[in-house]
Amino acid sequence: MLFFIGLGLHGAKGIPLIGLDIAKKAEKVYLDVYTSPITKDEIDSLKDLIGNEIVRVGRDFIEDGLEIINQAKQKDVALIASGDPMVATTHLDLRLRAEKYGIKTHVIHNSSILCALPGETGLHAYNFGKTVTLMKSGLTPSSTVYEVIHENLIRGLHTIILLEYDYSTGFFLKPNEALKSLLNMERDFRQGIFDDETFVIVTSRIGSNSQLLHGGKIGSLIDKDYSEPPHAIIVPGKLHFTEIDALKTLLKIDEDQITDNSSKVKSLAVSMVKRYAMNTRKALSKAREKSEAEKKNFDDLFENIECYISDAERFLNMGKFELAILSIGYAEGLLDSLRFIKELEIEW
Amino acid sequence: MLFFIGLGLHGAKGIPLIGLDIAKKAEKVYLDVYTSPITKDEIDSLKDLIGNEIVRVGRDFIEDGLEIINQAKQKDVALIASGDPMVATTHLDLRLRAEKYGIKTHVIHNSSILCALPGETGLHAYNFGKTVTLMKSGLTPSSTVYEVIHENLIRGLHTIILLEYDYSTGFFLKPNEALKSLLNMERDFRQGIFDDETFVIVTSRIGSNSQLLHGGKIGSLIDKDYSEPPHAIIVPGKLHFTEIDALKTLLKIDEDQITDNSSKVKSLAVSMVKRYAMNTRKALSKAREKSEAEKKNFDDLFENIECYISDAERFLNMGKFELAILSIGYAEGLLDSLRFIKELEIEW
Repeated sequence: MLFFIGLGLHGAKGIPLIGLDIAKKAEKVYLDVYTSPITKDEIDSLKDLIGNEIVRVGRDFIEDGLEIINQAKQKDVALIASGDPMVATTHLDLRLRAEKYGIKTHVIHNSSILCALPGETGLHAYNFGKTVTLMKSGLTPSSTVYEVIHENLIRGLHTIILLEYDYSTGFFLKPNEALKSLLNMERDFRQGIFDDETFVIVTSRIGSNSQLLHGGKIGSLIDKDYSEPPHAIIVPGKLHFTEIDALKTLLKIDEDQITDNSSKVKSLAVSMVKRYAMNTRKALSKAREKSEAEKKNFDDLFENIECYISDAERFLNMGKFELAILSIGYAEGLLDSLRFIKELEIEW
Repeated sequence: MLFFIGLGLHGAKGIPLIGLDIAKKAEKVYLDVYTSPITKDEIDSLKDLIGNEIVRVGRDFIEDGLEIINQAKQKDVALIASGDPMVATTHLDLRLRAEKYGIKTHVIHNSSILCALPGETGLHAYNFGKTVTLMKSGLTPSSTVYEVIHENLIRGLHTIILLEYDYSTGFFLKPNEALKSLLNMERDFRQGIFDDETFVIVTSRIGSNSQLLHGGKIGSLIDKDYSEPPHAIIVPGKLHFTEIDALKTLLKIDEDQITDNSSKVKSLAVSMVKRYAMNTRKALSKAREKSEAEKKNFDDLFENIECYISDAERFLNMGKFELAILSIGYAEGLLDSLRFIKELEIEW
């Protein structure tokens, strides 16, 4: 049988009793030292607690997995990992392969940074959208990172950005480099998400004794040194007043530093319809003057154009963005047609 | 000082060693018995483990919180709760009030169902969108539940639906009633999300020894008895092939039962643009014939209409939905204008 035991976020003593019992009885105990950092001292404490030999294993060993699988066919094997063991896809993959060989598997879950962050910031777990990882190496295209944050913000949701950390080389993406990279993305994608005034939270070493949370405008956080990993950045969306209260209390942030990133990032639809409605109204008014001067009668058409502009605005207020855009496009087309058939030269 | 200690999902022995140490040393230990179920046996085991008196407390006591806060001013108090202690807003609220009184607080995190579900199903943690709770009592409007699932599906994301559970009365929303309620929502909101063929996963008692996961079409799951709570339902979105593999292996589902709910729920924009493009093309072709018959020359206009229909389709393929809708609306307006100014009677 193959057991996966989560260490959670609180070091060696984060191990649940049930996991400790399994590890004590297991005939072979492995410790994953590559998906998350673990100090020599923590490993020693863990050995003392378990009183069993612990074999430290890295990425290759787990990805290959054959030795673990072969042993688990005969005896009880435990693989201990930081956080929740199933958040890492290599562990899930190993589990699936074992199950396919008919080996029973059992998971002792524990906390991961993804679950602990809402609690530590006071942001509601329900208000988080999809999570993204920011890699320095460009493995996740910045368009994906930006798009996920944008879509979350439009829906009023918070985004957790995990920062790249390569345990084998010790490389980690520093939060201030990550913030710079977010500002660079803004230059490329221009949806108005990030500038120096954007409110973000930088979290460091969540669950450890040196845990730190810094909340504030990007401009005030971009030059700080956040020391050792792991780090994550949160881009909050729409904030409930209880969330604002929690941020003030737990992160000691002044209320004037906390801004609503969602309201700033209006959806493309909203800004589009507002702009087009204004322009079409202006052009319609000029068209009316011109047709009067040229003694042409397009009253029926003009009335329809006016109705469709109003429809667009009504749909926008109802949150029916697609119908709003369709209506304003239609109104514009009705008017522009006169130009194409050379009935009226309208200036836009 | 006030400590919050998570029990996680694995019963009394799910307590992390660090939490056990704190509870042993604390001068007062409370156990929250209302945000999550805990059996008499589990409470007895916990007492044995901690060797300290444990006071069971319910909702009113924690919401009031004054006794805990007053004690924590003088001495170390521990509040033990199932799952991750900070997922419940009453605990977060208590923590904030304590901090405002200058009382230091410390959280020992643990797993919650929200973190464990990706691991137990093999669905990737990154592919989950916003979570919703389904209440029988109608406290969450079904339009909200439906809208969250719809928006997640359009983005290809999975949704966890937590089912109402009132620990004080023992009431819980049964998964089959929840599935019926989803089908009812479909009747009201008609975006094509739910029917008997929709693929969902019903999860029961995750982390306990009687944990069960059932995956399949709603039609085949709606009459089952899922026994004791807690339950949750997952509505998967777009599935990666490794996720399909995991579902087959861990949940023993036949591949033909697994369908992509996201592809079924095309966004309104996609279906709208496709339909309008087809209709506008048809009307344009009739308009061409008619203008030829009536010896009128609208070639310039017709060419523009054609271009804008193509533009709409091109934007659609690029995922630029707003621009696609705007273009098709514009094309339609260009053509319809001829009708309003009585230059050409076009049939649509």
